[in-house]
Amino acid sequence: MFNLKTFRSTTGVAALSLTLLSPSLLASQSSTQIRNTPTPIGVSSTMATIIENRQVSNSEVKAPDSTKAWLEVQQQLNSEFSKLALKAAESLPVSYQKKTIAGVDTFVVTPDKIDPRYADHYFMHLHGGAFVFGGEEAALREAIWMANGLNVKVISVDYRKPPLHPFPAAIDDAVAVWKEITRQQPANNTVLFGTSAGGNLTLATTLRLKELGLELPGALFAGTPATDLAHTSDSWHTLKGLDPLGSREGLIQGTFEIYVPSSDFNNPLVSPIYGDLSGFPPTLLISGTRDLLLSDTVRMHRALRAAEVTADLHIYDGQSHGDYMMGLFYDLPESDDALAELGSFFDTHLN
Amino acid sequence: MFNLKTFRSTTGVAALSLTLLSPSLLASQSSTQIRNTPTPIGVSSTMATIIENRQVSNSEVKAPDSTKAWLEVQQQLNSEFSKLALKAAESLPVSYQKKTIAGVDTFVVTPDKIDPRYADHYFMHLHGGAFVFGGEEAALREAIWMANGLNVKVISVDYRKPPLHPFPAAIDDAVAVWKEITRQQPANNTVLFGTSAGGNLTLATTLRLKELGLELPGALFAGTPATDLAHTSDSWHTLKGLDPLGSREGLIQGTFEIYVPSSDFNNPLVSPIYGDLSGFPPTLLISGTRDLLLSDTVRMHRALRAAEVTADLHIYDGQSHGDYMMGLFYDLPESDDALAELGSFFDTHLN
Repeated sequence: MFNLKTFRSTTGVAALSLTLLSPSLLASQSSTQIRNTPTPIGVSSTMATIIENRQVSNSEVKAPDSTKAWLEVQQQLNSEFSKLALKAAESLPVSYQKKTIAGVDTFVVTPDKIDPRYADHYFMHLHGGAFVFGGEEAALREAIWMANGLNVKVISVDYRKPPLHPFPAAIDDAVAVWKEITRQQPANNTVLFGTSAGGNLTLATTLRLKELGLELPGALFAGTPATDLAHTSDSWHTLKGLDPLGSREGLIQGTFEIYVPSSDFNNPLVSPIYGDLSGFPPTLLISGTRDLLLSDTVRMHRALRAAEVTADLHIYDGQSHGDYMMGLFYDLPESDDALAELGSFFDTHLN
Repeated sequence: MFNLKTFRSTTGVAALSLTLLSPSLLASQSSTQIRNTPTPIGVSSTMATIIENRQVSNSEVKAPDSTKAWLEVQQQLNSEFSKLALKAAESLPVSYQKKTIAGVDTFVVTPDKIDPRYADHYFMHLHGGAFVFGGEEAALREAIWMANGLNVKVISVDYRKPPLHPFPAAIDDAVAVWKEITRQQPANNTVLFGTSAGGNLTLATTLRLKELGLELPGALFAGTPATDLAHTSDSWHTLKGLDPLGSREGLIQGTFEIYVPSSDFNNPLVSPIYGDLSGFPPTLLISGTRDLLLSDTVRMHRALRAAEVTADLHIYDGQSHGDYMMGLFYDLPESDDALAELGSFFDTHLN
């Protein structure tokens, strides 16, 4: 049986992982950090406090066992994450509006202050959440982080999701929005980005654009992307018990299975690590030394480099899945640092 | 009591780590891999075989307890590692000769085929081995790897070491040789490189050149460098039991203590992570997801980036400390890949 309380305490399945749930909620959970490790030396005092107070377990959480059960969990988590997103939207100098683009639900996030170079310009965002979660207003979290951090307008795609809309609905939606955005601004001056499942979709959508012969983005940001849904990369094993994301077995594997009912996990549009990456745009990847998707990230970096793609890798000491984005809620130097790297990378590579 | 058999089986203290000892020798050891982890997905079949056959333990090995005992172990390991180096020298199209430069022992390694761009040109190498080991002909291992891999002549410095010559003798020797080399060729066209303790010395020597107001190298390669001797970085804890290097406690800490008898581990020339890195040359760093010095490496990368230094990070999935260099003895795609990255980096950044 699916147990939301255990789920909350042992996984962080959404884009930013459940580490972004409120501390009071986390404090109510019973699981504890199973690996007895000192606080990392190479982190800020804020990050150290986050790590010291987080709940980590590697116990397996069962996936919901029916479409109805999936929909209930999806709705409940969307609601919780949306509250966090709205809190961020209120506390930061940004505004947002819903907009239907090419028939797809999106959010347009506008910072109060816009970088003049990006005045008539949008970045395109694909949110995370294990392909199933993180939609509706919850999608705003990373979009706000980027919009506020780089003073750029962001269009975040609330793509269709399982259980009702499996692969390739999300990619079809992303392509449709991409076509519309690039009618208004040059593709090679447009960033496509996302974290976790959003990192997967960023890479997969770019592969799909290649297949369709469409113009590619000017640069990509793939944050701790899930790049291999067919095989379990090493860091899922080696870092178990250190990352609040928990465990791939059970629920997370379940999200992959309802995302790809055909189980064709070797399809490059499902697992971009297996794709033909030649001609890919410059790509920035971020992970952490306690990130269960560290191996997925560094394998993707090597695959891009093997295809002679410009690809920069940044690994934060002690960070778990998506931690760099915690600057949305904390004054976090590592988050500012990541935004500085992103800004510098886009300055260099956008047309 | 110091036990060489246990030491061999549980640590990999030298530049290339003891993983480069012969498989037959490793097979004779009794320790086993303590963390029950599947073979990493993201490695070549050769690397997979190496990982599957390696002996890993995290048990602490006591350091020798007298100068005499240190000297005996030093000589014994130098002898063993030198045999490996000579085997590589015989099997690969390179030659070498001893040469005293500025009063310092060095080896000049010359590949049969020299890249025309480097015809009158040397790279400068500082070998690894926890500051104590890896000298004499053992120093040739990484020098041969680079010379053969990039078709470039390499001067490898057999710097003075503890227990007889603690810090800063090694750096003084490196600076003396650097001055002599850069009398013959432009500094900004000269690479300085090393792995492990050699990576530390590469960074520390560059800091010292800055202090002295001397010209800096055109580019650095710091392979899985020990950058923080004052504090134990996170991956020493989180990856324990996965890396044949073993454990920092005991012997490795002992090498740090005889390298710096004053225990001033916060001195930036001892722990370059604490140095003023502004104006540093472009630096390439390599580590692996099972490398006990992963955190030391990524922390250094962030410190360089914070100082606005061009710094590229490459992390190999599943690799432990210095594994990329195993191409010296195996047909290893990851090793070829690392050499390709190094060649490309130097092409871009050397004058």
